Amino acid sequence: MPPEIETGRVRLVGAGPGAADLMTVRAMHAVQGAEALLYDALVSDEVLALAPAACLKIQTGKRAGRASLRQETINRLMLRLARRGLDVVRLKGGDPSVFGRVGEEAAFLRAHGVAVEVVPGVTAASAAAAQFGFPLTHRGEARRLMLVTGTTRDAASAPELAAAADPQTTLALYMGRRALAQAAEALVAAGRPPATPVLAVENAGRQEAYAVRASLGDLSSLDELADAEGPVLFVIGEVTSQATVSEASRAGRRQASV
Amino acid sequence: MPPEIETGRVRLVGAGPGAADLMTVRAMHAVQGAEALLYDALVSDEVLALAPAACLKIQTGKRAGRASLRQETINRLMLRLARRGLDVVRLKGGDPSVFGRVGEEAAFLRAHGVAVEVVPGVTAASAAAAQFGFPLTHRGEARRLMLVTGTTRDAASAPELAAAADPQTTLALYMGRRALAQAAEALVAAGRPPATPVLAVENAGRQEAYAVRASLGDLSSLDELADAEGPVLFVIGEVTSQATVSEASRAGRRQASV
Repeated sequence: MPPEIETGRVRLVGAGPGAADLMTVRAMHAVQGAEALLYDALVSDEVLALAPAACLKIQTGKRAGRASLRQETINRLMLRLARRGLDVVRLKGGDPSVFGRVGEEAAFLRAHGVAVEVVPGVTAASAAAAQFGFPLTHRGEARRLMLVTGTTRDAASAPELAAAADPQTTLALYMGRRALAQAAEALVAAGRPPATPVLAVENAGRQEAYAVRASLGDLSSLDELADAEGPVLFVIGEVTSQATVSEASRAGRRQASV
Repeated sequence: MPPEIETGRVRLVGAGPGAADLMTVRAMHAVQGAEALLYDALVSDEVLALAPAACLKIQTGKRAGRASLRQETINRLMLRLARRGLDVVRLKGGDPSVFGRVGEEAAFLRAHGVAVEVVPGVTAASAAAAQFGFPLTHRGEARRLMLVTGTTRDAASAPELAAAADPQTTLALYMGRRALAQAAEALVAAGRPPATPVLAVENAGRQEAYAVRASLGDLSSLDELADAEGPVLFVIGEVTSQATVSEASRAGRRQASV
């Protein structure tokens, strides 16, 4: 049995939706004290800037064509750094327990005798709702919230989405750009009205967030987001009709900010 | 049209799960700068202690037999305080967009010309998962997360829960002590195995959090929580088998802390 200090500790930390002040205080302190930081591509520059200058920073996720590390490589890397006695922070966008693979990473580390602490974060759906002023649940209108991801092959397919066909369910589709059209079709086939509003939010929780309205039956307005580089969250349900969406076009906003 | 300063602003702020350092940095600053604070019963003393001494603090929610203000009274009160030009913070446990009535309160305020800002928070399910070391979603095992509340009469009844009968759905039941037995029965009737693990978490996200395991087919171990004063969250799904739960009994813990 190696001495305890060599066994190490890794904190799996939720970076929240992007704005540094939407991290929890505990997460901020973890990043500020990190000696090694392994971060996903969804983590914003604003959050990364909180890490000490001397901190070893390793990007693990792919974005805009950059290669990403394999999960096994990430696991081994965390283990090696933790065993060196470094204060290791594994930083993930949003909440690590929601579509963040925290289960796999924690299991690997624990199996190797490394202590794991998880720090929760604000998930993108909560951030989008706060920023655009609509609720995720609403009395008499939306009694349930379902978070699904579009990354697994059949996650957004019928009959698995039949559950969300219930008009009282708000559906938040994460990483769902490829899955959206199929999901919308499945929902309509399962009985959800084609007029059900859809809100697509690019970069939810960041200053540059941008939202576009559509409906289950007509997603054509979302073409505007085809070249979006930031993450896009789709919220499906009547509650999104309460959202306040600026009329300024995306191209116009970009021009204005140049 | 009254002058702008009289129109005022209200911030609807998520206090997170209870520990002050699990608030977002933005929420903490809002509380620290508040001149009037209307808070729900679920907001912890630790969070309330962040408000300035001169801040007007009003408890709006009922807990342990104390009377609660009617929603209309809360709305009118926020409006009056905002029109006086005070920095009004409406503080809610967890995330205000999830079972927090943020839609109703925001709509009322906006209809009366008051600007509304929403600050998101960490919801109890994320806090419970982080604290007890299990994920809410897990590749190949739990691809979806559904948040439901037990407060509306039929929210936890079949066929509405049939959706969550899918074994790939993790179900988080908020405020569900009365609804749990019925929900468990509905889930089993809809095809979810009686052996499906259930984790009940009292005071998720607080230092005094306490978790008990059960299964959909046998909830008897939860009798221990019958006198729980704190909020209890029920997480239903295979992912909870990854939770690390202390063997110390609740009574024993209480005795130890006296």
